[in-house]
Amino acid sequence: MSADSVPGVFLSPAALLEHWQGHRRLTRRVIEAFPEDKLTSFSVGGMRPFGVMAVELLRMAVPTVKGVLTGDWSESVSPEARPKPETLRLWDESTKDLNALWRQIPAARFQETVKAFGQYEGRACDLVMYVIDNEIHHRGQGYVYLRSLGITPPPFWERQ
Amino acid sequence: MSADSVPGVFLSPAALLEHWQGHRRLTRRVIEAFPEDKLTSFSVGGMRPFGVMAVELLRMAVPTVKGVLTGDWSESVSPEARPKPETLRLWDESTKDLNALWRQIPAARFQETVKAFGQYEGRACDLVMYVIDNEIHHRGQGYVYLRSLGITPPPFWERQ
Repeated sequence: MSADSVPGVFLSPAALLEHWQGHRRLTRRVIEAFPEDKLTSFSVGGMRPFGVMAVELLRMAVPTVKGVLTGDWSESVSPEARPKPETLRLWDESTKDLNALWRQIPAARFQETVKAFGQYEGRACDLVMYVIDNEIHHRGQGYVYLRSLGITPPPFWERQ
Repeated sequence: MSADSVPGVFLSPAALLEHWQGHRRLTRRVIEAFPEDKLTSFSVGGMRPFGVMAVELLRMAVPTVKGVLTGDWSESVSPEARPKPETLRLWDESTKDLNALWRQIPAARFQETVKAFGQYEGRACDLVMYVIDNEIHHRGQGYVYLRSLGITPPPFWERQ
């Protein structure tokens, strides 16, 4: 029997939440690093401004976790970009909501197959990973925007 | 007792490897999408060309997994960018090496504290996550480079 057929833990639900909130603290700093007007207007290569991407991240995080917990896949945040203070306020609200919702999800739920937003079928753990990966992906793009604006982005390794 | 104090599995070691190799298939397609000369020369905002970032990813992936397994943290790939065919060849070699090494790591090892490359101390699972996060981060930057070159990047959600 090979080691990978032995069940085991790579990450527990609690460790994953801690990891995710570390990423979210970094993403918050990237939002903060943008000059107010550039957050919703500046982009490179015809892509979306970072303020629009940030709202996409808000529209995925809590709704996905709420969906995994309750089966209710409704979204509450509209897709348009917000001024920076409003984006940061929504971000902080999501931080609290994620902590509160996550703790209610039984570990076994993450291995179950769910249909997210009526269309994306997969294991709940994979759906959550997709949301985090999408955040890292777009935040990396935000780093290029900041560098193009002559702004040094926050250090990638700093998650506190 | 709250749900997050109950031990449980979010991702098993086998699920994490599958997730990572999915990301690595996508990153390979991003390397392939660059015109040969642009891979090692083009960048935005004074950042490194994607070919240099790709070699950084190679220098982190197998060496980290080998280090977690054996305690040997030596690196075997030098940091300079390679021509595209050579980069892809090294990528494919890493894919096989990762699969072979990962299967030998006992699950409990991922919860142990290790010192990576003589300097980065942390739980082995967190070190591995950092390597994957760094890949997603830089690949997102590669997407901006491709868009700036007028090239449509491979779809983010396609991991097969």
